Amino acid sequence: MKFILIPDSFKGTLSSVQICRIMEARIRRQFPDSAVVKVPVADGGEGTVDAFLAAAGGKKRFITVKNPYFEDIKAAYALIEDGKTAVIEMAACAGLPLVEDRKNPLLTTTYGVGEMILDAAGQGVRKIILGLGGSCTNDGGCGAAAAAGVKFFNKNGKEFIPTGGTVREIASIDLKSRKPGLAGIEIIAMCDIENPMYGPNGASFVFGPQKGADMETAALLDQGIRRLSEAIKEASGRDFSQVPGSGAAGAMGAGMLAFFEARLQMGIDTVLDAADFDRLMEDADYIFTGEGKLDRQSLGGKVVIGVARKARTKNKPVIAIVGGAVDEEIENVYEEGVSAVFPINRLPQDFSVSRSRSRENLEATTDNILRLIKLGK
Amino acid sequence: MKFILIPDSFKGTLSSVQICRIMEARIRRQFPDSAVVKVPVADGGEGTVDAFLAAAGGKKRFITVKNPYFEDIKAAYALIEDGKTAVIEMAACAGLPLVEDRKNPLLTTTYGVGEMILDAAGQGVRKIILGLGGSCTNDGGCGAAAAAGVKFFNKNGKEFIPTGGTVREIASIDLKSRKPGLAGIEIIAMCDIENPMYGPNGASFVFGPQKGADMETAALLDQGIRRLSEAIKEASGRDFSQVPGSGAAGAMGAGMLAFFEARLQMGIDTVLDAADFDRLMEDADYIFTGEGKLDRQSLGGKVVIGVARKARTKNKPVIAIVGGAVDEEIENVYEEGVSAVFPINRLPQDFSVSRSRSRENLEATTDNILRLIKLGK
Repeated sequence: MKFILIPDSFKGTLSSVQICRIMEARIRRQFPDSAVVKVPVADGGEGTVDAFLAAAGGKKRFITVKNPYFEDIKAAYALIEDGKTAVIEMAACAGLPLVEDRKNPLLTTTYGVGEMILDAAGQGVRKIILGLGGSCTNDGGCGAAAAAGVKFFNKNGKEFIPTGGTVREIASIDLKSRKPGLAGIEIIAMCDIENPMYGPNGASFVFGPQKGADMETAALLDQGIRRLSEAIKEASGRDFSQVPGSGAAGAMGAGMLAFFEARLQMGIDTVLDAADFDRLMEDADYIFTGEGKLDRQSLGGKVVIGVARKARTKNKPVIAIVGGAVDEEIENVYEEGVSAVFPINRLPQDFSVSRSRSRENLEATTDNILRLIKLGK
Repeated sequence: MKFILIPDSFKGTLSSVQICRIMEARIRRQFPDSAVVKVPVADGGEGTVDAFLAAAGGKKRFITVKNPYFEDIKAAYALIEDGKTAVIEMAACAGLPLVEDRKNPLLTTTYGVGEMILDAAGQGVRKIILGLGGSCTNDGGCGAAAAAGVKFFNKNGKEFIPTGGTVREIASIDLKSRKPGLAGIEIIAMCDIENPMYGPNGASFVFGPQKGADMETAALLDQGIRRLSEAIKEASGRDFSQVPGSGAAGAMGAGMLAFFEARLQMGIDTVLDAADFDRLMEDADYIFTGEGKLDRQSLGGKVVIGVARKARTKNKPVIAIVGGAVDEEIENVYEEGVSAVFPINRLPQDFSVSRSRSRENLEATTDNILRLIKLGK
């Protein structure tokens, strides 16, 4: 028997790496001789590098880059697929935990992220996966772009590195000055959110507050990103303002599109590619996936659906285990290729109570599913 | 494929008959050509007759007997197994709903129950199953005994029919006066509770209040049942006071033991017998059972365990579906023969909220279990 474990995290309770480990332990008990392949799914935020290393194998490279306040910091990224692909987590040098005591999206930069991208390019990779998420910045990726050679000028023609507070001072952008090292490298920016660059649903108003912005600051930040969008249009003729995900990570999504010719991609699709899931599932008997919640409307279900759509092409059974809520109207997940759905709640308790029992509930649910599978063997 | 459905009720939400119907409907969707045998489990209370009819087939017989206030009432019992077995529900003529507006355990009688038993005997049955439960009486079964010819005398030697309030006036009992019609008939009194006749855990103090007794009345009733126990000992030399279940249904348990030579039996064992479960499961592929809750300590789990113990002897898979809470420490249920356990909770909600979704949750859970089973086929 071969099992593939490819769960999303149960947001707020268990990481996808933890879920894989728990599921694997139960499989070892019920089917000691089975093969278990673990593919923890990352969403681009913290833990993305570790998830890819767990899924695809590889090594970490540690380098010194700038932190959110232009100070030196040691940061790591992953080289996977025999060094052909780099996986970078922007949170490693522009993450919120790095500035927990001095949050200020007016001042912070993504400069270090650009340095990491350039370093990876220098390692000879053909593909760079950049996880957007968990950032403390709102600079529209201008810092990263500056590190890669893109030049930003104010109305006096003076070059500067825009941060959240000075993005709105951009008069013009010189895209052609970008360093040549990135040519021919496929860059994928991973993000699971769909916010536009600016406006009420944009980067500044939606994610600014958690980065330390009050409403006044958020409005300032929003003006800046709006100006950035225009400046990009003037420099490139392209408008990224409404692209879903362009507002991710303080509009880093837009910066990746405009300055790095990146593609925005959902975490699950990126992981399915990197793990070579098509080949992986060829001899699989069961695919176990999971999410924190599963419903029709919200984003919950993206991982489950992504896995199911792939698995359906090869007629492979997909069992979805759900950490929190399962909506009542989920007939569509079966149509998408999910074989069966099991919530882990064992006691009729509110999530505020049950969340502390996630591990035990997941263990028991996995166990009973395996017992049922065993009956059929 | 052959499925046997043998669930307990989910107390407070779904009856076992309803659960069987819901499960069957889902099976028909996933396995249209399968055979489904429904054996709803009764506990002796209201619904017991219908459950046996659903499980074993048969017909209802309507007769006129005395209600709790010695008034005529039309009551029905079941004749199953080609008329060889009668199933009587004491609630049919001594039930709490019959006196909802005039509850008084000092005055009410089980006389009609005795009449039903005699009528069944007159029909030539070899076995009578009497469901204890849901009663409005606390007469220790004296009314039923009187209907069957047993004579009760007060200290003046005057014959009378004791009710809850006058049981304590019994000076002596003549057991030999019982009508001969019951000889050779096996009588089983079904009850799932284990209370003794009297004392703090006895019939009067534990169940008296729901029948309308205040504490003073409960104490009077308890004195009466205590006196009844002594009078039975004087008449028969036997002491039933501490037999588990003798306190059931206002000490009707004790009355059945003393006056009718009945056997007290748990609902699930009675149902397994009546349904001829041993034979039934011989060609079954899956046995679905269920309970409102499943834990180590409480009585929850009796049906699941009872079914599993039987099924284990023939190595048949038992799937337990649980309506409310599944305890974390239930390793023993697997040892007893349960193959897998699935709670129906789909949302992390308190039972006060989730109980209203029991039907939908049971449908979804059954459905997903069947989908998983299908994968193995």
